[in-house]
Amino acid sequence: MTPETAVEALSAIVSAAYVVGPDGDQEPYVVDWRGRYHGTALAVVKPATTAEVSAVVRWCAANGVAITPQGGNTGMCGAATPLGPRPQIVLRLDRLNKVRWTSRLGDAIAVDAGCVLADVQAAAESVDRLFPMSLGAEGSCQIGGNLSTNAGGTAVLRYGTMRELTLGLEVVLPDGDVLSSMTSLRKDSTGYDLKQLFIGAEGTLGIITGAVLKLFPRPRGRAVAMAKLDAIEDALSLLALARASLGERLGSFEIMSRGQIEVIAENVSHLAIPFALDSAFYLLIELVDTLEGQDLAGLLEGLLGEAFERGLVTDALVASSETQAEALWKIRHSVSEGSKRAGYVISHDSAVPLDAQAEFVTRVTARIAETRPDARIALHGHIGDGNIHVLAIIPGVAPDQADAMKDVAAAINSIVDEETAALNGSISAEHGIGVANRERLARVADPLELAWMRKVKALFDPQQLMNPGKVLTPDS
Amino acid sequence: MTPETAVEALSAIVSAAYVVGPDGDQEPYVVDWRGRYHGTALAVVKPATTAEVSAVVRWCAANGVAITPQGGNTGMCGAATPLGPRPQIVLRLDRLNKVRWTSRLGDAIAVDAGCVLADVQAAAESVDRLFPMSLGAEGSCQIGGNLSTNAGGTAVLRYGTMRELTLGLEVVLPDGDVLSSMTSLRKDSTGYDLKQLFIGAEGTLGIITGAVLKLFPRPRGRAVAMAKLDAIEDALSLLALARASLGERLGSFEIMSRGQIEVIAENVSHLAIPFALDSAFYLLIELVDTLEGQDLAGLLEGLLGEAFERGLVTDALVASSETQAEALWKIRHSVSEGSKRAGYVISHDSAVPLDAQAEFVTRVTARIAETRPDARIALHGHIGDGNIHVLAIIPGVAPDQADAMKDVAAAINSIVDEETAALNGSISAEHGIGVANRERLARVADPLELAWMRKVKALFDPQQLMNPGKVLTPDS
Repeated sequence: MTPETAVEALSAIVSAAYVVGPDGDQEPYVVDWRGRYHGTALAVVKPATTAEVSAVVRWCAANGVAITPQGGNTGMCGAATPLGPRPQIVLRLDRLNKVRWTSRLGDAIAVDAGCVLADVQAAAESVDRLFPMSLGAEGSCQIGGNLSTNAGGTAVLRYGTMRELTLGLEVVLPDGDVLSSMTSLRKDSTGYDLKQLFIGAEGTLGIITGAVLKLFPRPRGRAVAMAKLDAIEDALSLLALARASLGERLGSFEIMSRGQIEVIAENVSHLAIPFALDSAFYLLIELVDTLEGQDLAGLLEGLLGEAFERGLVTDALVASSETQAEALWKIRHSVSEGSKRAGYVISHDSAVPLDAQAEFVTRVTARIAETRPDARIALHGHIGDGNIHVLAIIPGVAPDQADAMKDVAAAINSIVDEETAALNGSISAEHGIGVANRERLARVADPLELAWMRKVKALFDPQQLMNPGKVLTPDS
Repeated sequence: MTPETAVEALSAIVSAAYVVGPDGDQEPYVVDWRGRYHGTALAVVKPATTAEVSAVVRWCAANGVAITPQGGNTGMCGAATPLGPRPQIVLRLDRLNKVRWTSRLGDAIAVDAGCVLADVQAAAESVDRLFPMSLGAEGSCQIGGNLSTNAGGTAVLRYGTMRELTLGLEVVLPDGDVLSSMTSLRKDSTGYDLKQLFIGAEGTLGIITGAVLKLFPRPRGRAVAMAKLDAIEDALSLLALARASLGERLGSFEIMSRGQIEVIAENVSHLAIPFALDSAFYLLIELVDTLEGQDLAGLLEGLLGEAFERGLVTDALVASSETQAEALWKIRHSVSEGSKRAGYVISHDSAVPLDAQAEFVTRVTARIAETRPDARIALHGHIGDGNIHVLAIIPGVAPDQADAMKDVAAAINSIVDEETAALNGSISAEHGIGVANRERLARVADPLELAWMRKVKALFDPQQLMNPGKVLTPDS
């Protein structure tokens, strides 16, 4: 297969205007956004409809051409970059960007997979509803990518992951058939729920082209506080206390270590830290309610007062205005910027069961410090989900020194992976596997589970055309 | 394979005390609880551990013996009855009845599949948490059966179906291997989520032996009301209004038609109906809150007042005491008893998208009345989930006249199925398929989806040993 042949055949399906051959500017599509993975493609194809996706896939299947599906190309693990030895195309979903319908009565929205997350949030808001998925890349990531990585973000505690937000799905299978369950049913007990296989599969079993997603009532008020604590255990006890009484009012429960906030304070200018950095951990707590006129600040003060009496928190600050609430959130949102400026960041995305989090943090912190005494260890994450991001920051090393840092990163990754696996955790809570983590997954996963993943892959994609080399290591 | 050989071999695995051969009292295990399906078994086997289940399955796989897994045998569709031409055993899960662990911090409970639902509810309560799954058979149905049918019940609106309540699963595969993901992780993005396949599969892909389930904070207060309405559309508008403001406080939103309440009033003694039966529909609304001391009755009165002003409800009664609240719920709980005494009941379990419910009800009601003018049509269900049970009650016909009613039932089933399918609904929202509905499913389901279900079945169970003839029609 030459690129010329591919471009010609694919142009016949989507028109030449939406095919980028090797002579065109393929760069934005064959390199991941962090610049860590560089691939090559026979062509980049931009179909506009599910039927066009199907036709492109049929052509690929008939000609043994592999496919890398690509949404916003904002992934963390190289899952959307065309890598490996096989001739392949990049199939961009951008032009499948319509909201198909919204239902206020049914609290549901049906969208094309290429819709940008922020646009779906806006479409929900336009019918006075909330689509709660929220994450850093929301301005450019696409729903298909969110589904394919079973995205998490900052609202999982209250609303669940992408899987839990999904009611229906439309998928183009590796042979070009379109498997559709695009309804908004909340209850269905009619056999195997096949759509679940494609969520989190990173495009290795088929290409998601559409989805029906849950909508929620919009919160009408919030209260925000920052609390200081001595230990993870105290954060978890406070979480249990808050959940038991406040229930679904608990919107966010985000943790940062002192080391993390110090890194932010040193490296992000114009940022006020309105409290002393004299405790080990800091919790950002947000209460929300769909009902107007509720005294959420009062409830939050009551919770923190009780926590103080029980010795769970050492101090706390409840925002007295929306401006102050924003300022507290600003600290949390400055994690990436601050960390990046502090040195070379070796980051992790582990989740462990909630009651294992304290042990996890203690173990990895001690072992990283032993292995690399100069590393600054910064922790932040969604403690309500068991998902704490462990950063090891090597001071004085620039972000582009990936090669020089390779061995250090591998050693620290191994520590985190070992402790995650020992505590029945997941080495990738919300970022996925792609190529970045496939060897790590192969090391820590249950061999029986991996074997069954391979069997499922072989069933759906016997030619191994769909996003080859992602999630699973290539067959040897 | 003779029964003697099977009994001897299985006794070597679980001991003779836990094997019931054809000479023993197999009746409770080979007939479904409604007495509609009668099967035969080489033996009924009661393993006590996952390892014993695995050993039994390995023996069956080696000897070509099929397996009907059975929990509490409370299913509605014959899925737990050993039917069909193949020699098979019944594998009872009763003795796998341990709560493995509970985690208050992690809001999770790990249980054996043979635990009775009510016992899991009680175990959750013992650590001051709620396991919200609740349905009529909760005193005898088992968690494995709830998982295998993706059970719904009365709390789906707020807490979701069994699938949404599941964090981890342990399954004995058709070859005897044990696939386990028994952790309480809330976020995990590491490849295909295989456990989803077994939820709702009715034991046709493997035997669920354990699960990790979500727990929730316990509600500390409630308010209950009955509202009268002229139309389904009004009920849905009221639901949207309630959700938008009250959010997660909305615990139940159950509908009954006037015909349904009349049937109850006529046939259930000592039951007070504290309102006139002069409207078309009746809504039972319950608000709950985890926070004590909230004026839920006031909120409910406010909601109903606004609904009255908007013309959505014609009248409403907010319970002024817990006794009155119980009395209102008693009406809803008397649906089965009342309907059964009114004649021969042809019931349905359809779900349609919420905004199609009015059309669904209008269409099926008109067509049933036309086909069978003497039928009393009674409607009740979980309107918040899109799941309205349509009952056609044939007066003067006793419940045991199934043979005489066969053609009538088939004609009315066809009407409901056709309208369900036309509105993108599900013919089985929460009861499953079993043998009762497999031909109906084959008629209405997407052929591509059915074909893929068969491929998945063949992948996991190439010998077709697991609950043969259930969900899918036998291969022809």
